[in-house]
Amino acid sequence: MADATEMFTILQVAEEGRTNIEAVVAREFSLTIILNNRELVTLLCSPINLEYLAVGFLSSEGLIKGKDEIKKIVLSEEQGVIRVETEEDRDFTGRLIASSGARGAAYPNIVDVQSQIMVKTEISASEVLALVEDFEHRSPIYRVTGGVHSAALCSKDGILIFSEDIGRHNAIDKIFGECILKDTSTAERIIITSGRISSEILVKVAKRDIPIIISLAVPTDVAVRLATDLALTIIGRVRGKKMNVYTEGWRVIAENT
Amino acid sequence: MADATEMFTILQVAEEGRTNIEAVVAREFSLTIILNNRELVTLLCSPINLEYLAVGFLSSEGLIKGKDEIKKIVLSEEQGVIRVETEEDRDFTGRLIASSGARGAAYPNIVDVQSQIMVKTEISASEVLALVEDFEHRSPIYRVTGGVHSAALCSKDGILIFSEDIGRHNAIDKIFGECILKDTSTAERIIITSGRISSEILVKVAKRDIPIIISLAVPTDVAVRLATDLALTIIGRVRGKKMNVYTEGWRVIAENT
Repeated sequence: MADATEMFTILQVAEEGRTNIEAVVAREFSLTIILNNRELVTLLCSPINLEYLAVGFLSSEGLIKGKDEIKKIVLSEEQGVIRVETEEDRDFTGRLIASSGARGAAYPNIVDVQSQIMVKTEISASEVLALVEDFEHRSPIYRVTGGVHSAALCSKDGILIFSEDIGRHNAIDKIFGECILKDTSTAERIIITSGRISSEILVKVAKRDIPIIISLAVPTDVAVRLATDLALTIIGRVRGKKMNVYTEGWRVIAENT
Repeated sequence: MADATEMFTILQVAEEGRTNIEAVVAREFSLTIILNNRELVTLLCSPINLEYLAVGFLSSEGLIKGKDEIKKIVLSEEQGVIRVETEEDRDFTGRLIASSGARGAAYPNIVDVQSQIMVKTEISASEVLALVEDFEHRSPIYRVTGGVHSAALCSKDGILIFSEDIGRHNAIDKIFGECILKDTSTAERIIITSGRISSEILVKVAKRDIPIIISLAVPTDVAVRLATDLALTIIGRVRGKKMNVYTEGWRVIAENT
């Protein structure tokens, strides 16, 4: 926790007057990923689980396929650099722009997602609500700073991996990086994200054969259309006892158990 | 409005049962900026005010300085392409990665911000609250979709320019693009953003000689440190009648008028 946050003395202004208070602020860290001696990208991120972030990012971009390919990972926090060496040097397509600067067509990376996700996984509405309630209480950095996104990999019964980052893409890449390094399968699992679902987030998740994505926020139109094409279930705006199921509603069974 | 949103028939699951409802979703658009026949970047954005976005983005990246330099802007919404021609072809430094993928050191672009913002602009706490209240009621796309960020350029007395986009960087670039194309000065003005203040957002704003930035969310540690260096006031977490003033608190005068 010490790493991901920093304390500042600031001024609080209220009707009652002005007070100096201690505010905990999320730290912003600049991590440059060097793949096989080539500088690839610099991510603004939270300085925790940086190995997971690098591996997850490389995997999301199609630059590594699995743990076996990774020969070496050397992190220098001081320099803000992580060096990854792999067996095979895959073609770098130059599409490496994250978040609001995504290169490519309206359907980025869709070619990498082979086919529809045929998984028959179902979840009940009460299971969704239980997962989301647990998710909302998990985030230690959010609770103190109010300034980070979180993501979780879940089974129907509970959260398996939880991650936080100032970037919503990074929070999800950290989960997938951890899965790769720990040989944890993502197939038939569920992803929860605190952020909205854009096409980029949806494609990241679809590539892992994950049939259900739950967001506390909402999807964009492209995400909804992609999810329909890929037969992936988007659940959004989970609030109180209600939720919106944007696509593939058959996976959400209504009766409580 | 028709352009920035799209209607989908979705399933709403609640305790009372399942209903099909019409949900309005924010559209996601892929805009490729071509500067002097060179493909520069593709931004994922909301499909409104795309000329403002392109001009604001180019200006934030230091690729254009003012309106006079722009010879031609041709937007093809069908192709998702905007072509900008300028007088002078500035060096492109390759730092063009937006949002979570910012290239460079921990203080991106700081070299471009010449010096401290010496502006003596002050604002009272009640003026901040009035601006934020107006801001929160302005956002038509957010109200229907819950899925976009907004930003505004203000004087102490009210909102001058309001913009919305699925990306928080884009919402701010759209404002600056509009200012450039309409010859509106940003000096001594105030920026409000719905999103958190990262170093990138702070630098965008500092470059415009804007002394006060207000966020409904919170800043990161790097933004706080940069704002201290540049003598820029960050106001965050404006909720109810309270606000946090992270830096340069002297600009916020407490008495109501």
